[in-house]
Amino acid sequence: MNNKGILVVVSGFSGAGKGTVMKELLKRYDNYALSVSVTTRLPRPGEEDGREYFFRTKEEFEQLIREDALIEYARYVDNYYGTPRSYVEQKLAEGKDVILEIEIQGAMKVKERNPETLLVFVTPPTVEELKRRLEGRGTEEADVIASRMSRAAEEAEGMDAYDYVLVNDDLEECVERMHEIIQSEHFRMNRNTDFIRQIKEESRAFII
Amino acid sequence: MNNKGILVVVSGFSGAGKGTVMKELLKRYDNYALSVSVTTRLPRPGEEDGREYFFRTKEEFEQLIREDALIEYARYVDNYYGTPRSYVEQKLAEGKDVILEIEIQGAMKVKERNPETLLVFVTPPTVEELKRRLEGRGTEEADVIASRMSRAAEEAEGMDAYDYVLVNDDLEECVERMHEIIQSEHFRMNRNTDFIRQIKEESRAFII
Repeated sequence: MNNKGILVVVSGFSGAGKGTVMKELLKRYDNYALSVSVTTRLPRPGEEDGREYFFRTKEEFEQLIREDALIEYARYVDNYYGTPRSYVEQKLAEGKDVILEIEIQGAMKVKERNPETLLVFVTPPTVEELKRRLEGRGTEEADVIASRMSRAAEEAEGMDAYDYVLVNDDLEECVERMHEIIQSEHFRMNRNTDFIRQIKEESRAFII
Repeated sequence: MNNKGILVVVSGFSGAGKGTVMKELLKRYDNYALSVSVTTRLPRPGEEDGREYFFRTKEEFEQLIREDALIEYARYVDNYYGTPRSYVEQKLAEGKDVILEIEIQGAMKVKERNPETLLVFVTPPTVEELKRRLEGRGTEEADVIASRMSRAAEEAEGMDAYDYVLVNDDLEECVERMHEIIQSEHFRMNRNTDFIRQIKEESRAFII
Protein backbone atom coordinates (compact mmCIF):
# COMPACT_ATOMS: atom_id res chain seq x y z
CA MET A 1 0.00 0.00 0.00
CA ASN A 2 0.88 3.63 -0.27
CA ASN A 3 3.14 5.00 2.44
CA LYS A 4 3.21 8.58 1.29
CA GLY A 5 1.60 11.14 3.54
CA ILE A 6 -1.59 12.99 2.70
CA LEU A 7 -1.81 16.75 2.43
CA VAL A 8 -4.80 17.79 4.53
CA VAL A 9 -6.30 21.24 4.53
CA VAL A 10 -8.45 22.02 7.54
CA SER A 11 -10.66 25.08 7.37
CA GLY A 12 -13.62 26.23 9.37
CA PHE A 13 -15.45 29.19 10.80
CA SER A 14 -13.55 31.30 13.26
CA GLY A 15 -14.95 29.98 16.54
CA ALA A 16 -15.44 26.42 15.27
CA GLY A 17 -12.60 25.34 17.55
CA LYS A 18 -10.43 23.84 14.84
CA GLY A 19 -7.24 25.05 16.48
CA THR A 20 -8.03 23.05 19.61
CA VAL A 21 -8.95 19.98 17.54
CA MET A 22 -5.66 20.14 15.63
CA LYS A 23 -3.58 20.65 18.75
CA GLU A 24 -5.18 17.62 20.36
CA LEU A 25 -4.78 15.53 17.20
CA LEU A 26 -1.05 16.25 17.05
CA LYS A 27 -0.64 15.52 20.73
CA ARG A 28 -2.27 12.09 20.39
CA TYR A 29 -0.85 10.76 17.14
CA ASP A 30 2.67 11.03 15.84
CA ASN A 31 1.86 10.50 12.17
CA TYR A 32 0.89 14.14 11.65
CA ALA A 33 2.90 17.25 10.96
CA LEU A 34 1.43 20.71 11.21
CA SER A 35 2.64 23.06 8.54
CA VAL A 36 4.19 26.23 9.92
CA SER A 37 3.29 29.32 7.91
CA VAL A 38 5.64 32.07 6.91
CA THR A 39 4.59 35.66 7.54
CA THR A 40 5.86 39.20 7.29
CA ARG A 41 4.06 40.36 10.41
CA LEU A 42 6.16 40.97 13.50
CA PRO A 43 6.41 38.29 16.19
CA ARG A 44 4.16 38.85 19.21
CA PRO A 45 5.61 38.37 22.68
CA GLY A 46 6.28 34.67 23.28
CA GLU A 47 6.19 33.71 19.60
CA GLU A 48 9.23 31.91 18.25
CA ASP A 49 10.57 31.79 14.70
CA GLY A 50 9.80 28.35 13.26
CA ARG A 51 7.23 27.46 15.91
CA GLU A 52 4.20 29.74 15.53
CA TYR A 53 5.47 31.18 12.23
CA PHE A 54 8.56 31.66 10.17
CA PHE A 55 9.07 35.41 10.43
CA ARG A 56 10.47 37.00 7.29
CA THR A 57 10.85 40.47 5.84
CA LYS A 58 8.65 41.63 2.99
CA GLU A 59 11.65 41.37 0.63
CA GLU A 60 12.38 37.81 1.72
CA PHE A 61 8.73 36.85 1.31
CA GLU A 62 8.54 38.27 -2.19
CA GLN A 63 11.68 36.33 -3.02
CA LEU A 64 9.87 33.13 -1.89
CA ILE A 65 6.96 34.01 -4.19
CA ARG A 66 9.29 34.49 -7.13
CA GLU A 67 11.01 31.16 -6.44
CA ASP A 68 7.63 29.38 -6.30
CA ALA A 69 8.63 28.25 -2.82
CA LEU A 70 5.12 28.71 -1.42
CA ILE A 71 2.18 26.34 -1.93
CA GLU A 72 -0.19 29.25 -1.41
CA TYR A 73 0.00 32.72 0.00
CA ALA A 74 -2.27 35.65 0.66
CA ARG A 75 -1.99 39.23 1.73
CA TYR A 76 -4.08 40.56 4.63
CA VAL A 77 -3.98 44.27 5.24
CA ASP A 78 -0.24 44.96 5.16
CA ASN A 79 1.12 41.49 5.75
CA TYR A 80 1.80 38.36 3.73
CA TYR A 81 1.01 34.85 4.95
CA GLY A 82 2.06 31.71 3.09
CA THR A 83 2.77 27.98 3.24
CA PRO A 84 6.38 26.94 2.52
CA ARG A 85 6.53 24.15 -0.01
CA SER A 86 9.79 22.50 1.12
CA TYR A 87 8.63 21.66 4.64
CA VAL A 88 5.36 20.21 3.38
CA GLU A 89 7.02 18.07 0.73
CA GLN A 90 9.69 16.80 3.08
CA LYS A 91 7.12 15.70 5.67
CA LEU A 92 4.90 14.05 3.04
CA ALA A 93 7.89 12.09 1.75
CA GLU A 94 8.57 10.94 5.33
CA GLY A 95 5.06 9.50 5.36
CA LYS A 96 3.57 12.14 7.62
CA ASP A 97 0.09 13.48 6.95
CA VAL A 98 0.66 17.21 6.75
CA ILE A 99 -2.04 19.51 8.03
CA LEU A 100 -2.49 23.04 6.76
CA GLU A 101 -4.87 25.14 8.79
CA ILE A 102 -5.80 27.76 6.23
CA GLU A 103 -8.91 29.45 5.03
CA ILE A 104 -11.08 28.79 2.10
CA GLN A 105 -9.33 30.87 -0.59
CA GLY A 106 -5.97 29.34 0.29
CA ALA A 107 -7.56 25.90 0.38
CA MET A 108 -8.85 26.32 -3.17
CA LYS A 109 -5.42 27.39 -4.40
CA VAL A 110 -3.75 24.38 -2.77
CA LYS A 111 -6.34 21.98 -4.19
CA GLU A 112 -5.96 23.44 -7.66
CA ARG A 113 -2.25 22.81 -7.74
CA ASN A 114 -2.36 19.59 -5.68
CA PRO A 115 -5.58 17.79 -6.64
CA GLU A 116 -4.86 14.95 -4.21
CA THR A 117 -5.27 17.34 -1.25
CA LEU A 118 -7.89 16.29 1.27
CA LEU A 119 -10.17 19.15 2.33
CA VAL A 120 -11.91 19.03 5.70
CA PHE A 121 -14.28 21.71 6.95
CA VAL A 122 -14.92 22.04 10.69
CA THR A 123 -18.15 23.63 11.85
CA PRO A 124 -20.15 24.01 15.05
CA PRO A 125 -23.47 22.10 14.99
CA THR A 126 -25.49 25.25 14.29
CA VAL A 127 -24.94 28.88 13.36
CA GLU A 128 -26.62 29.87 16.63
CA GLU A 129 -23.97 27.86 18.48
CA LEU A 130 -21.20 29.59 16.53
CA LYS A 131 -22.57 32.95 17.63
CA ARG A 132 -22.84 31.74 21.22
CA ARG A 133 -19.21 30.60 21.21
CA LEU A 134 -17.94 33.89 19.80
CA GLU A 135 -19.95 35.86 22.37
CA GLY A 136 -18.94 33.45 25.11
CA ARG A 137 -15.30 34.31 24.75
CA GLY A 138 -16.28 37.60 26.32
CA THR A 139 -13.26 39.32 24.82
CA GLU A 140 -14.76 40.59 21.63
CA GLU A 141 -16.76 43.73 20.93
CA ALA A 142 -20.20 43.34 19.35
CA ASP A 143 -18.98 44.74 16.05
CA VAL A 144 -16.08 42.27 15.93
CA ILE A 145 -18.53 39.42 16.51
CA ALA A 146 -20.86 40.77 13.84
CA SER A 147 -17.97 40.96 11.41
CA ARG A 148 -16.90 37.39 12.17
CA MET A 149 -20.43 36.10 11.73
CA SER A 150 -20.63 37.89 8.42
CA ARG A 151 -17.35 36.37 7.37
CA ALA A 152 -18.61 32.91 8.42
CA ALA A 153 -21.68 33.36 6.24
CA GLU A 154 -19.47 34.13 3.26
CA GLU A 155 -17.27 31.12 4.00
CA ALA A 156 -20.30 28.83 4.30
CA GLU A 157 -20.98 29.43 0.60
CA GLY A 158 -17.73 27.65 -0.22
CA MET A 159 -18.23 24.60 2.02
CA ASP A 160 -19.34 22.35 -0.86
CA ALA A 161 -15.84 22.35 -2.29
CA TYR A 162 -14.59 20.41 0.74
CA ASP A 163 -14.42 16.63 0.89
CA TYR A 164 -15.62 16.22 4.46
CA VAL A 165 -17.60 18.22 6.97
CA LEU A 166 -16.88 17.65 10.63
CA VAL A 167 -19.14 18.95 13.38
CA ASN A 168 -17.21 20.06 16.42
CA ASP A 169 -19.74 19.44 19.13
CA ASP A 170 -17.66 17.29 21.41
CA LEU A 171 -13.87 17.77 21.27
CA GLU A 172 -13.04 14.14 22.05
CA GLU A 173 -15.33 12.83 19.33
CA CYS A 174 -14.20 15.43 16.81
CA VAL A 175 -10.51 14.61 17.25
CA GLU A 176 -11.07 10.89 16.82
CA ARG A 177 -13.27 11.43 13.77
CA MET A 178 -10.71 13.69 12.18
CA HIS A 179 -8.10 11.01 12.75
CA GLU A 180 -10.30 8.26 11.28
CA ILE A 181 -11.25 10.34 8.26
CA ILE A 182 -7.63 11.10 7.41
CA GLN A 183 -6.45 7.54 8.04
CA SER A 184 -9.30 6.02 6.01
CA GLU A 185 -8.32 8.25 3.14
CA HIS A 186 -5.07 6.30 2.81
CA PHE A 187 -7.17 3.40 1.50
CA ARG A 188 -8.84 5.37 -1.28
CA MET A 189 -8.43 3.53 -4.56
CA ASN A 190 -6.91 6.53 -6.32
CA ARG A 191 -4.23 6.90 -3.64
CA ASN A 192 -3.06 3.33 -4.26
CA THR A 193 -2.55 3.18 -8.00
CA ASP A 194 0.90 1.59 -7.69
CA PHE A 195 -0.42 -1.19 -5.51
CA ILE A 196 -3.37 -1.82 -7.86
CA ARG A 197 -1.07 -1.91 -10.87
CA GLN A 198 1.11 -4.48 -9.10
CA ILE A 199 -1.87 -6.72 -8.21
CA LYS A 200 -3.06 -6.55 -11.80
CA GLU A 201 0.35 -7.39 -13.24
CA GLU A 202 0.99 -10.27 -10.87
CA SER A 203 -2.43 -11.76 -11.46
CA ARG A 204 -2.31 -11.66 -15.26
CA ALA A 205 0.01 -14.66 -15.25
CA PHE A 206 -2.90 -16.75 -13.96
CA ILE A 207 -5.39 -16.00 -16.71
CA ILE A 208 -6.36 -19.23 -18.45
CA MET B 1 -25.88 15.62 10.23
CA ASN B 2 -27.16 12.87 8.03
CA ASN B 3 -28.65 9.87 9.82
CA LYS B 4 -29.46 7.78 6.78
CA GLY B 5 -27.52 4.58 6.36
CA ILE B 6 -24.96 4.01 3.64
CA LEU B 7 -25.24 1.27 1.05
CA VAL B 8 -21.88 -0.50 1.04
CA VAL B 9 -20.85 -3.03 -1.57
CA VAL B 10 -17.97 -5.27 -0.51
CA SER B 11 -16.27 -7.31 -3.21
CA GLY B 12 -12.99 -9.12 -3.37
CA PHE B 13 -11.16 -12.11 -4.72
CA SER B 14 -12.43 -15.48 -3.67
CA GLY B 15 -9.95 -16.31 -0.90
CA ALA B 16 -9.49 -12.71 0.22
CA GLY B 17 -11.35 -13.56 3.42
CA LYS B 18 -14.07 -10.95 3.04
CA GLY B 19 -16.72 -13.27 4.49
CA THR B 20 -14.79 -13.53 7.76
CA VAL B 21 -14.22 -9.78 7.85
CA MET B 22 -17.94 -9.10 7.37
CA LYS B 23 -19.02 -11.63 9.98
CA GLU B 24 -16.66 -10.09 12.52
CA LEU B 25 -17.78 -6.55 11.62
CA LEU B 26 -21.42 -7.42 12.21
CA LYS B 27 -20.62 -9.15 15.49
CA ARG B 28 -18.78 -6.10 16.84
CA TYR B 29 -20.97 -3.22 15.72
CA ASP B 30 -24.74 -3.01 15.70
CA ASN B 31 -25.03 -0.24 13.12
CA TYR B 32 -24.69 -2.65 10.20
CA ALA B 33 -27.14 -4.89 8.38
CA LEU B 34 -26.04 -7.58 6.00
CA SER B 35 -28.26 -7.87 2.97
CA VAL B 36 -29.65 -11.37 2.50
CA SER B 37 -29.75 -12.44 -1.15
CA VAL B 38 -32.58 -14.23 -2.86
CA THR B 39 -31.78 -17.29 -4.96
CA THR B 40 -33.43 -20.05 -6.93
CA ARG B 41 -30.89 -22.65 -5.91
CA LEU B 42 -31.98 -25.28 -3.42
CA PRO B 43 -31.07 -24.88 0.26
CA ARG B 44 -28.07 -26.89 1.40
CA PRO B 45 -28.30 -28.84 4.66
CA GLY B 46 -28.35 -26.40 7.56
CA GLU B 47 -29.33 -23.38 5.47
CA GLU B 48 -32.41 -21.49 6.55
CA ASP B 49 -34.78 -19.38 4.46
CA GLY B 50 -34.15 -15.72 5.29
CA ARG B 51 -30.81 -16.37 6.99
CA GLU B 52 -28.31 -17.56 4.36
CA TYR B 53 -30.67 -16.78 1.49
CA PHE B 54 -34.29 -16.23 0.66
CA PHE B 55 -35.08 -19.39 -1.32
CA ARG B 56 -37.56 -18.84 -4.15
CA THR B 57 -38.73 -20.69 -7.22
CA LYS B 58 -37.68 -19.62 -10.70
CA GLU B 59 -41.19 -18.26 -11.32
CA GLU B 60 -41.19 -16.26 -8.08
CA PHE B 61 -37.73 -14.86 -8.91
CA GLU B 62 -38.79 -13.77 -12.39
CA GLN B 63 -41.81 -12.08 -10.84
CA LEU B 64 -39.41 -10.12 -8.59
CA ILE B 65 -37.46 -9.06 -11.68
CA ARG B 66 -40.62 -7.85 -13.39
CA GLU B 67 -41.66 -5.89 -10.31
CA ASP B 68 -38.24 -4.21 -10.14
CA ALA B 69 -38.00 -5.60 -6.63
CA LEU B 70 -34.29 -6.41 -6.96
CA ILE B 71 -31.42 -3.93 -6.78
CA GLU B 72 -29.33 -6.25 -8.93
CA TYR B 73 -29.45 -9.85 -10.00
CA ALA B 74 -27.42 -12.29 -12.04
CA ARG B 75 -27.74 -15.76 -13.39
CA TYR B 76 -25.00 -18.34 -12.75
CA VAL B 77 -25.31 -21.62 -14.57
CA ASP B 78 -28.95 -22.51 -13.91
CA ASN B 79 -29.66 -20.33 -10.91
CA TYR B 80 -30.60 -16.75 -10.22
CA TYR B 81 -29.09 -14.69 -7.41
CA GLY B 82 -30.34 -11.21 -6.50
CA THR B 83 -30.54 -8.47 -3.87
CA PRO B 84 -34.05 -7.60 -2.64
CA ARG B 85 -34.69 -3.88 -2.71
CA SER B 86 -37.24 -3.67 0.14
CA TYR B 87 -34.98 -5.07 2.86
CA VAL B 88 -32.11 -2.79 1.84
CA GLU B 89 -34.29 0.33 1.74
CA GLN B 90 -35.93 -0.42 5.04
CA LYS B 91 -32.58 -0.89 6.80
CA LEU B 92 -31.11 2.26 5.23
CA ALA B 93 -34.12 4.26 6.42
CA GLU B 94 -33.55 2.87 9.93
CA GLY B 95 -30.05 4.37 9.76
CA LYS B 96 -28.23 1.07 9.32
CA ASP B 97 -25.30 0.83 6.94
CA VAL B 98 -26.31 -2.02 4.68
CA ILE B 99 -23.61 -4.31 3.36
CA LEU B 100 -23.95 -6.22 0.12
CA GLU B 101 -21.31 -8.85 -0.42
CA ILE B 102 -21.51 -9.22 -4.19
CA GLU B 103 -19.11 -9.45 -7.05
CA ILE B 104 -17.90 -6.90 -9.44
CA GLN B 105 -20.60 -7.04 -12.15
CA GLY B 106 -23.35 -6.76 -9.53
CA ALA B 107 -21.43 -3.97 -7.83
CA MET B 108 -21.34 -1.97 -11.05
CA LYS B 109 -25.09 -2.38 -11.55
CA VAL B 110 -25.82 -1.24 -8.00
CA LYS B 111 -23.55 1.78 -8.35
CA GLU B 112 -25.13 2.75 -11.66
CA ARG B 113 -28.62 2.89 -10.19
CA ASN B 114 -27.51 4.13 -6.74
CA PRO B 115 -24.58 6.48 -7.31
CA GLU B 116 -24.21 7.11 -3.58
CA THR B 117 -23.17 3.47 -3.03
CA LEU B 118 -19.80 3.01 -1.35
CA LEU B 119 -17.64 0.38 -3.04
CA VAL B 120 -14.93 -1.42 -1.06
CA PHE B 121 -12.61 -4.01 -2.54
CA VAL B 122 -10.90 -6.52 -0.23
CA THR B 123 -7.65 -8.12 -1.35
CA PRO B 124 -4.82 -10.16 0.12
CA PRO B 125 -1.49 -8.27 0.23
CA THR B 126 -0.14 -10.07 -2.86
CA VAL B 127 -1.34 -12.40 -5.60
CA GLU B 128 1.14 -15.00 -4.33
CA GLU B 129 -0.58 -14.85 -0.94
CA LEU B 130 -3.99 -15.32 -2.58
CA LYS B 131 -2.73 -18.46 -4.28
CA ARG B 132 -1.23 -19.71 -1.02
CA ARG B 133 -4.55 -19.21 0.78
CA LEU B 134 -6.54 -21.04 -1.87
CA GLU B 135 -4.06 -23.93 -1.84
CA GLY B 136 -3.88 -23.87 1.94
CA ARG B 137 -7.56 -24.73 2.26
CA GLY B 138 -6.49 -28.15 1.06
CA THR B 139 -9.98 -28.91 -0.14
CA GLU B 140 -9.69 -27.76 -3.72
CA GLU B 141 -8.35 -29.56 -6.77
CA ALA B 142 -5.57 -27.90 -8.74
CA ASP B 143 -7.90 -27.06 -11.63
CA VAL B 144 -10.40 -25.39 -9.30
CA ILE B 145 -7.60 -23.26 -7.85
CA ALA B 146 -6.36 -22.41 -11.34
CA SER B 147 -9.87 -21.37 -12.35
CA ARG B 148 -10.26 -19.19 -9.23
CA MET B 149 -6.89 -17.53 -9.85
CA SER B 150 -7.93 -16.85 -13.42
CA ARG B 151 -11.18 -15.37 -12.23
CA ALA B 152 -9.29 -13.19 -9.72
CA ALA B 153 -7.10 -11.87 -12.53
CA GLU B 154 -10.19 -10.86 -14.48
CA GLU B 155 -11.72 -9.20 -11.41
CA ALA B 156 -8.51 -7.29 -10.72
CA GLU B 157 -9.07 -5.40 -13.97
CA GLY B 158 -12.20 -3.85 -12.46
CA MET B 159 -10.71 -2.79 -9.12
CA ASP B 160 -10.28 0.84 -10.15
CA ALA B 161 -14.03 1.34 -10.12
CA TYR B 162 -14.07 0.86 -6.35
CA ASP B 163 -13.78 3.70 -3.85
CA TYR B 164 -11.50 1.95 -1.38
CA VAL B 165 -9.08 -0.95 -1.39
CA LEU B 166 -8.57 -2.84 1.82
CA VAL B 167 -5.74 -5.30 2.33
CA ASN B 168 -6.76 -8.24 4.45
CA ASP B 169 -3.45 -9.15 6.02
CA ASP B 170 -4.49 -9.11 9.64
CA LEU B 171 -8.18 -9.81 10.40
CA GLU B 172 -8.32 -7.56 13.46
CA GLU B 173 -6.85 -4.62 11.58
CA CYS B 174 -8.97 -5.21 8.50
CA VAL B 175 -12.24 -5.24 10.46
CA GLU B 176 -11.42 -2.02 12.27
CA ARG B 177 -10.33 -0.34 9.04
CA MET B 178 -13.50 -1.38 7.29
CA HIS B 179 -15.49 0.09 10.16
CA GLU B 180 -13.56 3.36 10.11
CA ILE B 181 -13.82 3.70 6.34
CA ILE B 182 -17.59 3.24 6.37
CA GLN B 183 -18.13 5.50 9.38
CA SER B 184 -15.88 8.24 7.97
CA GLU B 185 -17.94 8.16 4.82
CA HIS B 186 -20.89 9.55 6.78
CA PHE B 187 -19.00 12.84 6.98
CA ARG B 188 -18.48 13.20 3.23
CA MET B 189 -19.67 16.59 2.11
CA ASN B 190 -21.98 15.17 -0.55
CA ARG B 191 -23.73 12.95 2.00
CA ASN B 192 -24.63 15.99 4.09
CA THR B 193 -26.24 18.34 1.63
CA ASP B 194 -29.24 19.03 3.89
CA PHE B 195 -27.01 19.99 6.78
CA ILE B 196 -24.88 22.26 4.57
CA ARG B 197 -27.96 23.92 3.15
CA GLN B 198 -29.19 24.59 6.68
CA ILE B 199 -25.87 26.11 7.80
CA LYS B 200 -25.85 28.33 4.73
CA GLU B 201 -29.43 29.49 5.24
CA GLU B 202 -29.00 30.20 8.94
CA SER B 203 -25.79 32.11 8.38
CA ARG B 204 -27.07 34.36 5.60
CA ALA B 205 -28.94 36.45 8.16
CA PHE B 206 -25.56 37.59 9.51
CA ILE B 207 -24.13 38.99 6.29
CA ILE B 208 -23.40 42.69 6.73
